[in-house]
Amino acid sequence: MAAAAAASASAERGVDVKKDGEEEQVVNPWEVSAGKGGIDYDKLVDQFGCQRLDAALVDRVARLTGRPPHRFLRRGIFFAHRDLNEILNLYERGEKFYLYTGRGPSSEALHLGHLIPFMFTKYLQDAFKVPLVIQLTDDEKFLWKNLTVEESKRLARENAKDIIACGFDVERTFIFSDFSFVGGAFYENMVKVARCVTYNKVVGIFGFSPEDHIGKVSFPPVQAVPSFPSSFPHLFAVNDQLRCLIPCAIDQDPYFRMTRDVAPRIGYQKPSLIESRFFPALQGENTKMSASDPNSAIYVTDTRKEITTKVNRYAFSGGQDSVELHRKLGANLNVDVPIKYLNFFLEDDDVLEHIKKEYKEGRMLTGEVKQRLIEVLYELVARHQRARAQVTEEMVDAFMAVRPLPNMFG
Amino acid sequence: MAAAAAASASAERGVDVKKDGEEEQVVNPWEVSAGKGGIDYDKLVDQFGCQRLDAALVDRVARLTGRPPHRFLRRGIFFAHRDLNEILNLYERGEKFYLYTGRGPSSEALHLGHLIPFMFTKYLQDAFKVPLVIQLTDDEKFLWKNLTVEESKRLARENAKDIIACGFDVERTFIFSDFSFVGGAFYENMVKVARCVTYNKVVGIFGFSPEDHIGKVSFPPVQAVPSFPSSFPHLFAVNDQLRCLIPCAIDQDPYFRMTRDVAPRIGYQKPSLIESRFFPALQGENTKMSASDPNSAIYVTDTRKEITTKVNRYAFSGGQDSVELHRKLGANLNVDVPIKYLNFFLEDDDVLEHIKKEYKEGRMLTGEVKQRLIEVLYELVARHQRARAQVTEEMVDAFMAVRPLPNMFG
Repeated sequence: MAAAAAASASAERGVDVKKDGEEEQVVNPWEVSAGKGGIDYDKLVDQFGCQRLDAALVDRVARLTGRPPHRFLRRGIFFAHRDLNEILNLYERGEKFYLYTGRGPSSEALHLGHLIPFMFTKYLQDAFKVPLVIQLTDDEKFLWKNLTVEESKRLARENAKDIIACGFDVERTFIFSDFSFVGGAFYENMVKVARCVTYNKVVGIFGFSPEDHIGKVSFPPVQAVPSFPSSFPHLFAVNDQLRCLIPCAIDQDPYFRMTRDVAPRIGYQKPSLIESRFFPALQGENTKMSASDPNSAIYVTDTRKEITTKVNRYAFSGGQDSVELHRKLGANLNVDVPIKYLNFFLEDDDVLEHIKKEYKEGRMLTGEVKQRLIEVLYELVARHQRARAQVTEEMVDAFMAVRPLPNMFG
Repeated sequence: MAAAAAASASAERGVDVKKDGEEEQVVNPWEVSAGKGGIDYDKLVDQFGCQRLDAALVDRVARLTGRPPHRFLRRGIFFAHRDLNEILNLYERGEKFYLYTGRGPSSEALHLGHLIPFMFTKYLQDAFKVPLVIQLTDDEKFLWKNLTVEESKRLARENAKDIIACGFDVERTFIFSDFSFVGGAFYENMVKVARCVTYNKVVGIFGFSPEDHIGKVSFPPVQAVPSFPSSFPHLFAVNDQLRCLIPCAIDQDPYFRMTRDVAPRIGYQKPSLIESRFFPALQGENTKMSASDPNSAIYVTDTRKEITTKVNRYAFSGGQDSVELHRKLGANLNVDVPIKYLNFFLEDDDVLEHIKKEYKEGRMLTGEVKQRLIEVLYELVARHQRARAQVTEEMVDAFMAVRPLPNMFG
């Protein structure tokens, strides 16, 4: 019984225990570590019990929105979902839904991995013309990191500027920090969720230990309740059954498994999810990027020179050790970080396929692919920096004001 | 080791495990059960680690306030404290403090036991001329009882009317419900407290089990933070080191032991406490009154007829079985409920002593003592009913408005 329970709890939190007892991969909101072959996303989908986002579903998104699918969809970067089809069904019937995503503001500067969900959410907002709530979990970062409340709140506001720079529509977007917004209907929903989840259950889902502080145990309802429209009476007062779609990285799935389990018990709709792979570190696929190693990631604040140095020096190459060998054997694209990064950020499918083919067959060298990547990243980062420089304190106030959004479905 | 840990955890939550393994008394915020001899308050003070409130301290209160001590002080009903002397020291130096008490609104009608802390707090407010915050823990009652959020909030407001009827000064009193007020600085303090308390610690203090829901685990910080003036920026913005004195029944001590442990770690002052015994059930000293047995208590809504019936029929008597025997042996005052109730509510010490002497020596009969008690209780209840009938919705709004209290120390 005990062993079975342990195995079941492990499966629930995405820990894969190999037969010899060695742990292969751990994926939860605070830890992502892969085995030698990188994250096994297929296994993760099965363990978490979510669904694969197949080509038919991508086609359906394209058809319903009347625009080409985002490259993150075309290329399987958002690769898993829960009940996305239900959201598309209601959209097809002319009904509405809202988007919910978020960020834990633990650092001043965002790296490119942090932008992925926001770039994709911006696409979803534009394509479906729906409102969006963005939660900044400054309370979570206070609880997990050694920050003061003031510093957590400051970082939330700084991060809001980067998020706004992604181009969200202020007429359809409400950004809030937990320290500012928890209370009222939102707090009522937190307490309703908390009453439905046992301590054993959160231990099974999140892996807390009895020596962890109760702030950790108390937090999951905070991230759960933006899934329920009644948490935002200033936005959704008329419809507490409005459906919610959550774009996020798959490490956030545990929160929403819990949320979906609780929702019907408190009279609410389950949120749907659309979930991404992790953006790899420059050093390779094995982990998420680390905020403590600035050379593991490209930051949105990096200069052209920093981008050039990081890509040339640290981006793990699948090319061969000598030009001669490379011309003969070609590159191993499965481990090549520049190709992976281009897969995220180079928009043109034909150009990307051409580069991959030339590189794989040895006609293109690592240095040439890296040069191409540097151009793509610099363009992206420079555009972000220009947009962020335009974000004023007044704009932050406007996005974060607790206000109705009268044209949010318009 | 395991046994020692269990014994230590038991001591911490006031559970007295006898040598033969039978539990003698349990005192925590949700359960009070005594052994055969009633609650052993001496043992409780030692187990909890609070201090006895001795005659010298009562005299000091009288001297500093320039008025006779409340009968609850004269008669040892408020019998224990934590750092009350520190509050008196600063008061003597001309400094200020504030009072904090509360109620979990689980029932429509309050019984006399519920009034004890409010009657005493009203005396303290008048005697020291200090501000007071009163917390209505509607979230707690939602979490522990099978209530809806709406019903919990409604009960909070109804209970506020009974509290207001105790005569508090609206110029010095802020009443709030958690569902209405949690947020902002109050929530920040909740999260600060939660980060300092491990799950093991709350299990040790409150006895939660792993199958309890996380709402229970999350709640203790909510009751802790009104001890900190920074939780009320509209009242105490200028002084986040203002000391707090908490009048309460001793079953609430676990919350404030936890609070006092955390306070210095987050830069705050420890609250002081002044703690009462329990008001006995009509059937005797062994437990607190039960809301589920209306004949166990006198309610503030009871009619003269109901009071008469309850006292005559249910109030446990220490008198003898026959008049002859009673005249000969007299009453056993230690178990006599009418005498205990008179001890709480009959103001005149000389009259009380006279009744006790006559009754103990058999010259007064149980029926006569009960008749005297019925008069005292009816007067108290009728006065409360008249006062409550004067409490309007506007007065509730006024007490519960989030507002500065400019004359609260005046």
